[in-house]
Amino acid sequence: MAQRHLDPTNTTAAPADAVAGYLRERATEFLRALRTHRETGGGMASGAEESTDAALALRRSARRISGTLHTFRPLLDADWSESLRPELAWLSGTLGREHAYAARLDRLVTALNRLSGATPFPAQGTPAKPGGGSRAAGAARLGATAPAAATPHPAPDRGNLTVGAAKAGALLDRQLTLARTRAHSAALQALGSSRFHAVADSVAVLASEVPLTPTATAADLGPLAAAAHDRLRDAVTGLPLHTAGHPYNAEALIHGLSPDTAPHPQDAPWHQVRLLLRLHRYALEVLHPESVPVDVRLLAAGEALNRHRDASEAASAAAAAARTPRIAPATAYALGVLHADQRHEVEASRFAFQQCWQKEAVSTS
Amino acid sequence: MAQRHLDPTNTTAAPADAVAGYLRERATEFLRALRTHRETGGGMASGAEESTDAALALRRSARRISGTLHTFRPLLDADWSESLRPELAWLSGTLGREHAYAARLDRLVTALNRLSGATPFPAQGTPAKPGGGSRAAGAARLGATAPAAATPHPAPDRGNLTVGAAKAGALLDRQLTLARTRAHSAALQALGSSRFHAVADSVAVLASEVPLTPTATAADLGPLAAAAHDRLRDAVTGLPLHTAGHPYNAEALIHGLSPDTAPHPQDAPWHQVRLLLRLHRYALEVLHPESVPVDVRLLAAGEALNRHRDASEAASAAAAAARTPRIAPATAYALGVLHADQRHEVEASRFAFQQCWQKEAVSTS
Repeated sequence: MAQRHLDPTNTTAAPADAVAGYLRERATEFLRALRTHRETGGGMASGAEESTDAALALRRSARRISGTLHTFRPLLDADWSESLRPELAWLSGTLGREHAYAARLDRLVTALNRLSGATPFPAQGTPAKPGGGSRAAGAARLGATAPAAATPHPAPDRGNLTVGAAKAGALLDRQLTLARTRAHSAALQALGSSRFHAVADSVAVLASEVPLTPTATAADLGPLAAAAHDRLRDAVTGLPLHTAGHPYNAEALIHGLSPDTAPHPQDAPWHQVRLLLRLHRYALEVLHPESVPVDVRLLAAGEALNRHRDASEAASAAAAAARTPRIAPATAYALGVLHADQRHEVEASRFAFQQCWQKEAVSTS
Repeated sequence: MAQRHLDPTNTTAAPADAVAGYLRERATEFLRALRTHRETGGGMASGAEESTDAALALRRSARRISGTLHTFRPLLDADWSESLRPELAWLSGTLGREHAYAARLDRLVTALNRLSGATPFPAQGTPAKPGGGSRAAGAARLGATAPAAATPHPAPDRGNLTVGAAKAGALLDRQLTLARTRAHSAALQALGSSRFHAVADSVAVLASEVPLTPTATAADLGPLAAAAHDRLRDAVTGLPLHTAGHPYNAEALIHGLSPDTAPHPQDAPWHQVRLLLRLHRYALEVLHPESVPVDVRLLAAGEALNRHRDASEAASAAAAAARTPRIAPATAYALGVLHADQRHEVEASRFAFQQCWQKEAVSTS
């Protein structure tokens, strides 16, 4: 037990009803977002932004509820929480897809512009953040409720691109816009489905009464939160952090031309750490609701892993586009440069995570 | 004068005949290398390696003589030295071209293998040095005196490459081998020309009697060597070292897709520093013949700049190959990835130089 006092997640012995309170708040947020989404949705252009925000808020709450059910599962009615979690994951995945495609297109078009020298390069001393700042533009497309084909969205600025880069941009635009349109329809369909209504009903129950186990009120949250932290730490231990800490280790582009079209296997453990870091962060929110947002280093580490995931998927999208039949060699060349650029973003993100984590480890040891 | 004592190039007041001695030694080396080259050259396969070494030695001496004539020019007969320098530069350039093409092909094929996962990646903790170690193989091709078309040289290992990477490798092999063959012929032609014989005659004079100015023997070498150091330092001051010191600043790939086919303008100041660093090193050799090889950090900085130049030229070669008419999209894609990979090598080299230089600046301040 002496060891427990060293754990940063256990500064106070939080009562089990902190979990119930946290879940109730997230459930209330979920229901509020759902109401807003219904009021602003339905295809009216004026409501697009509110609808977008509402969809993001729905997803945000769904992820937190799901994460909390997972980390603190011994305190909650097992049957109930185990049936709800996969449904929340389905919802969160479905709602996130459209946003992801839009953000991916923005990231790739921003990179194409940068690679063509079409955007001014930041002044010396301000290292470029490739793909940075494109999130807002991507998010603005999320949740537009009219069919995407009828929603003119700003075309990528290809004014200063070479023919190859311009064609690559047009190809990516076509492919990712199609994917986005499909994701949009799927999300609308999901929100109208009986499956979704069952999820909403469960969350409504949660907003009024959290189904705790009989022994839950006497339980100590510390060990459960600490276990989430341990799972994160163990997963980080498995990462090649030593290599990642050497700038320009050139590892992320290994197999960049490999015939394997599957996602990079070397990325998977990083994606896993991203999820565990999020669970750890949510557990801290439960235990320390007063100190939200949490530690900036933790947030920075999470940002690095988000960037890692985004760049990894953008690199795959560029590689996939290059396999389109009958494209011009100049288009393929531009997609090759773009792919490599995004794989270097992957490497840069790992380096950034390693730097954050090193500080984190020092400060909590 | 008090300031002069702080200068690391002036630990002792070297006599002017140190320059004469240095030039005589280099001239003797030049003549010895020339003799070896003539004895081993002429197309006999058994003599290829000696011939290669001899050509490298010729170039090595020519560069040092030229650099010394430049740095210490007030001590030397102006007309004589100003007519000899461009001739030495011509010779050194002509002799270097074949080696450069061979090394470039090795670097690119090594990178293609790495990018295809065809070569084992170094163990964790040993950051990869892309393109490293390929110099020896490249050098082995230099100076082969038989016409290159009739000299079978090992084909790049494309056993595990994807079709795109394999075709890219074959295309680069074809183009750079052709360039190498032409450079080889040009070098042979140069060594048989009356222009070369005039250079050899001048160097023969130098080996016996260095044409110093009447006042040279009383001169102090320190200020001249210090001026070479100042020129280097000033040029380094103009480099974007602050940006280069931020890992993954993504600057080297800016304009990676720009329509401009000329060499990257951002590389030029680094190439200039590379030349000035070499002149500084030669000046140190003149002043401190006892401490050759010089400071390892200076050598490391020079290595970083060599790698910068090699990667820059390899990236251009990949981009140029991608402009070959009627190539397959898969080939163009592989060349795009390769181009970006080498541009990242450029960025990595700048980072490495920045790290060396920082240490250098601290140690000499």
